[in-house]
Amino acid sequence: MAESAGVYCPMPSEQDNVEQAKGNPALNSSTFIPPAPLMSPSIIIEFCDRCRWLHRATWVSTELFLTFPPPVLKAISIIPLNSEETGGRFRVWLNLEGSPPQLMWDRKIEGGFPELKGLKQRIRDYVQPGKSLGHSDKKSE
Amino acid sequence: MAESAGVYCPMPSEQDNVEQAKGNPALNSSTFIPPAPLMSPSIIIEFCDRCRWLHRATWVSTELFLTFPPPVLKAISIIPLNSEETGGRFRVWLNLEGSPPQLMWDRKIEGGFPELKGLKQRIRDYVQPGKSLGHSDKKSE
Amino acid sequence: MAESAGVYCPMPSEQDNVEQAKGNPALNSSTFIPPAPLMSPSIIIEFCDRCRWLHRATWVSTELFLTFPPPVLKAISIIPLNSEETGGRFRVWLNLEGSPPQLMWDRKIEGGFPELKGLKQRIRDYVQPGKSLGHSDKKSE
Amino acid sequence: MAESAGVYCPMPSEQDNVEQAKGNPALNSSTFIPPAPLMSPSIIIEFCDRCRWLHRATWVSTELFLTFPPPVLKAISIIPLNSEETGGRFRVWLNLEGSPPQLMWDRKIEGGFPELKGLKQRIRDYVQPGKSLGHSDKKSE
Repeated sequence: MAESAGVYCPMPSEQDNVEQAKGNPALNSSTFIPPAPLMSPSIIIEFCDRCRWLHRATWVSTELFLTFPPPVLKAISIIPLNSEETGGRFRVWLNLEGSPPQLMWDRKIEGGFPELKGLKQRIRDYVQPGKSLGHSDKKSE
Repeated sequence: MAESAGVYCPMPSEQDNVEQAKGNPALNSSTFIPPAPLMSPSIIIEFCDRCRWLHRATWVSTELFLTFPPPVLKAISIIPLNSEETGGRFRVWLNLEGSPPQLMWDRKIEGGFPELKGLKQRIRDYVQPGKSLGHSDKKSE
Repeated sequence: MAESAGVYCPMPSEQDNVEQAKGNPALNSSTFIPPAPLMSPSIIIEFCDRCRWLHRATWVSTELFLTFPPPVLKAISIIPLNSEETGGRFRVWLNLEGSPPQLMWDRKIEGGFPELKGLKQRIRDYVQPGKSLGHSDKKSE
Repeated sequence: MAESAGVYCPMPSEQDNVEQAKGNPALNSSTFIPPAPLMSPSIIIEFCDRCRWLHRATWVSTELFLTFPPPVLKAISIIPLNSEETGGRFRVWLNLEGSPPQLMWDRKIEGGFPELKGLKQRIRDYVQPGKSLGHSDKKSE
């Protein structure tokens, strides 16, 4: 049933749906396990929603998942903020097991938005140190 | 400095950047507080990455933020999965303080993907029960 | 029926659908007029698909529509390219009636990707010269 | 210089930029050829902007490009509409050389939005009749 996958990702038939819902764990939501609160490695993007940066944040998350598909990155969380004191914020955090989230980017410190190449290099150095990001990439020193 | 905002979201000048980094808490990352692990209310979207549903998940998150801007929804997390046993999964969870995440949508149970209207109605009934979603909306009973 | 609009955008009932398709011009596709080949003003984004810039192009188009909603911009076209000689291309064109499309951005000439603010200012100067893009904006001279 | 490509998509060096702009056709915009007004095959998505369907239209275009990368589809144009008489419109057109654009989807005729699988099957039957869209796909009859 998967849209364009080359792999087999099954979907219960409608009949299953009706007849076997109680017996089939795939259809019995009481057997479902909610995801863990904070996966590792994962990315958190905080941004000022007054500045209308939702689509920028979403785009960054799309690019990060394409470069670091699961299980390299296990989750990305998007956090829009709309209070006075978070005005102008655009921060990218990396969450790794065993330590508090580490700051990868802050718009005020860096004086602007992340060019993807630089952001990806910083994240790569933590989550996949050997990986080349393409021919123009150099391991950051 | 905000791109298209009608509000004032300041950005430190370049001079600040150089001269005052240590003194200016906006530029001193050791003063930054990482976001909490699990905000409330928030949404979690789990999906099968083999099925290539990243863009569907991202689109759903964009739509939910437009309908429930912060602080109604405080965060959305996207979790791609690529193991055998999560094949074909597309689940939307709502996280509310004081209880485990509640299932809002499961592709196998529902027999397909969420039409946005229905998904928004279910979420609305928890996070903003009085809100109308438009003239075709009815409060679910 | 509109998802979240404050305006009334009707949808024929199912009954209409079945009974009146022939008589109801809204449901008779032979009465539909295809869109014109090149609307004005409109934007064209050409990019190297080998470089995987689809999501960047799509994000830019989202931002341009949010800043210049119709009828300021009437259309945006996205053109992925995958030949040898278009390698590394990222160009933004503005189409205005009565002249050939004008170049707003070229990655090789500019030495990188458009920061949105600069690109919006250039487009604004043609399509909506009086418009302020926010407090940090200055009319380009 | 390409972000994540496995191919070589060159970017002129900064020195080129300064010294050779006039001589280097890659940097001389007077040698650039604007894209043709209507490419074939291409897709046109018209939608009611009052209904806030920009992100739905953008998502559909992303999915179509992933399934039909260039040169199968050469362009996708997005046309937001905001007049009274286009209220509630969501139409997908296919443009093929030698004939006027053909309607692939109309929200009012179909009674809702395209499920991607169905829309892709219709487009596939014109632009790439032999292509399988995955294991659940059947050539439409």
